[in-house]
Amino acid sequence: MQHGNDILLSLFVVFVAAQVGGRVARAIRLPGVVGEIVAGCVVGPSLLGWVAPSEPLEVLSEIGVVLLLFAVGLETRIDEMQRVGRSAFLVGLLGVIVPFVFGSLWAHGSGYDWAKSMFIAAAFVATSAGITARVLQELGVLQREESRVILGAAVIDDILAMLLLGIVTALQAGEDVQVGKLAIVLAEAIGFVVVIGIVGTRLARRSAPRLDAQRIDLLPYALALCLGLAFLSTQFGLAAIIGAFLAGMVASETPQRAKLEHDTQPLLALMTPFFFVLTGAKIELAQLASNDALLTLALITLIALISKLIGGGLGALALGKRSALIVGVGMMPRGEVGVVIASLGLAAGVFSARTYALIVAMSLITSIVTPPLLALLLKNDKS
Amino acid sequence: MQHGNDILLSLFVVFVAAQVGGRVARAIRLPGVVGEIVAGCVVGPSLLGWVAPSEPLEVLSEIGVVLLLFAVGLETRIDEMQRVGRSAFLVGLLGVIVPFVFGSLWAHGSGYDWAKSMFIAAAFVATSAGITARVLQELGVLQREESRVILGAAVIDDILAMLLLGIVTALQAGEDVQVGKLAIVLAEAIGFVVVIGIVGTRLARRSAPRLDAQRIDLLPYALALCLGLAFLSTQFGLAAIIGAFLAGMVASETPQRAKLEHDTQPLLALMTPFFFVLTGAKIELAQLASNDALLTLALITLIALISKLIGGGLGALALGKRSALIVGVGMMPRGEVGVVIASLGLAAGVFSARTYALIVAMSLITSIVTPPLLALLLKNDKS
Repeated sequence: MQHGNDILLSLFVVFVAAQVGGRVARAIRLPGVVGEIVAGCVVGPSLLGWVAPSEPLEVLSEIGVVLLLFAVGLETRIDEMQRVGRSAFLVGLLGVIVPFVFGSLWAHGSGYDWAKSMFIAAAFVATSAGITARVLQELGVLQREESRVILGAAVIDDILAMLLLGIVTALQAGEDVQVGKLAIVLAEAIGFVVVIGIVGTRLARRSAPRLDAQRIDLLPYALALCLGLAFLSTQFGLAAIIGAFLAGMVASETPQRAKLEHDTQPLLALMTPFFFVLTGAKIELAQLASNDALLTLALITLIALISKLIGGGLGALALGKRSALIVGVGMMPRGEVGVVIASLGLAAGVFSARTYALIVAMSLITSIVTPPLLALLLKNDKS
Repeated sequence: MQHGNDILLSLFVVFVAAQVGGRVARAIRLPGVVGEIVAGCVVGPSLLGWVAPSEPLEVLSEIGVVLLLFAVGLETRIDEMQRVGRSAFLVGLLGVIVPFVFGSLWAHGSGYDWAKSMFIAAAFVATSAGITARVLQELGVLQREESRVILGAAVIDDILAMLLLGIVTALQAGEDVQVGKLAIVLAEAIGFVVVIGIVGTRLARRSAPRLDAQRIDLLPYALALCLGLAFLSTQFGLAAIIGAFLAGMVASETPQRAKLEHDTQPLLALMTPFFFVLTGAKIELAQLASNDALLTLALITLIALISKLIGGGLGALALGKRSALIVGVGMMPRGEVGVVIASLGLAAGVFSARTYALIVAMSLITSIVTPPLLALLLKNDKS
């Protein structure tokens, strides 16, 4: 009867921190997600030390962001995604190239050789769709064209980031880049997304009405699909959230779409706090406690923000200047993806603990800075 | 982007196993929960080996059963509990004493000394409310008098089991039983239950309308309360589910009771499969692969079932014979509580790995046997 007590306390602290942080943020007119991340930093090891990242919390956090992207997918129709396909592709592509070039230049300028510089630059690249998706959802603007472009671009972005990670890992290890092998990896990832996106949604449109007619509650099936595709997408080298997003799009083609959207709300209320609070808890303030570190951090954060703004914005110019700005800002958060690449770099001995801490902090700051900016742009736009 | 892939696969397997098992069970007119437990045994290490119990799965399982008892608490009013208080107390008390006596006699007869025998008997005692609660909920009979008696008795049962564990641990270690200390432990546990049950529900009745008037969604508050009381109850030596059940009773006094009941359904759909599948995955079939072991298992399972039936039934005789039978059957599952006590006994070297495996198997078999019996009794009763 005594097992798992500590974890229950952690769950409680994380959950309450998220509620308090979210309320405070909304009270000062910031998106709730900012408050949840900051609350995570406060209760995390850097400050109060009430909660330390642990394997169970990581899993809950992963389930939280997977469910979040599933819910976002539920609000996204494949037809509408195809309509913005061209813009999304351009935003994804330029949103990877520009930060990669800027990141490499900065790292090389800081004394790293080109191979290591490109590895570091890879951590500048990948957009974390979770943060932006949550803001778009909080503001109720997931149906806007810019939102669809951002979500589509996040999928493209993740495919390219995966490819890039493969290339820089090989380069850094002094191996030849095997173009044939990379082409297969790329083809597989694209194939996965296209097959699920196109074939999966059609299958759902055709077969779900039969289940619906038997009055079967589709929620368990949808959740199974969500977990299954989240796992499958990691097998194609993509983030779990890409599979979850696709699962949401598939489920949104069923007649129970409205019920599923409704049912996922309590799931998000329970699970997403773990993701955002844990994101905040990973910020290591101690590593940044020097003027030099803070200056460097400010510099790389600016590089990360501006390069994504330029890349993403250029890709979306066809939508008009203001929409391009919204898309560019929406692509800015790096979140956990930058953190994961930085972890790989640290483990591979590519860079120091300080560079690691800087990249992690940069990734997280981009996640904190983006929501208020995005909310400001989208709110002014409405009036 | 590569972290947590294995766990995603485990989550998927557990979730799908629960759905398939539940459907098959219902197709052959058994309660779904039996199918989920059996499915767990099939995908677990004993047979297919697709899923192994791990820390993250344990945590998800714990959250699942905590949410389940929270949901059951939501459907339980404190007034109605107080009305059955006397019966519940008797059922809890006799439901502990009879199995303890029978268990001690069997263990002593098998060659253990009295101190060890009483330790083993403690694993025969504690009812696992999760299994019965799920069956009662599936059948929609949580409002029946018998259901309330069972739930109330489960609380009493857990307090007494906690006390008993304290006593047998001291006896077995050759220490004196410190009556004063035990009295304090008992008083604290009772105090916790009474304060939350009586004061908490009144506070909720008075203050929640104010939150409700501000149109605040009470779900996050209710979930925080659930996690907080679940943790707090472990601090008083009680099972986490007791705190969760109390939290549900407190939340049921708010004006948003119906909304909360509705919102917890998707949470149960996502989380409870982890509890039931993991329960099944813990059955170690290999340890039971001999005629001798199977015979002993049959014997102790019979002792466990019959002693609880007698104890629980005697306590509820005032409700009439048929109701007493329902209550007695409802108290039979030992589930995870027996497993936890057995683990403590194994760790303390009180008994062998074989006795451990037997007790665990007995605990789990009582959980598989009870739901069909209970469903049969309650269904026939309705017609």
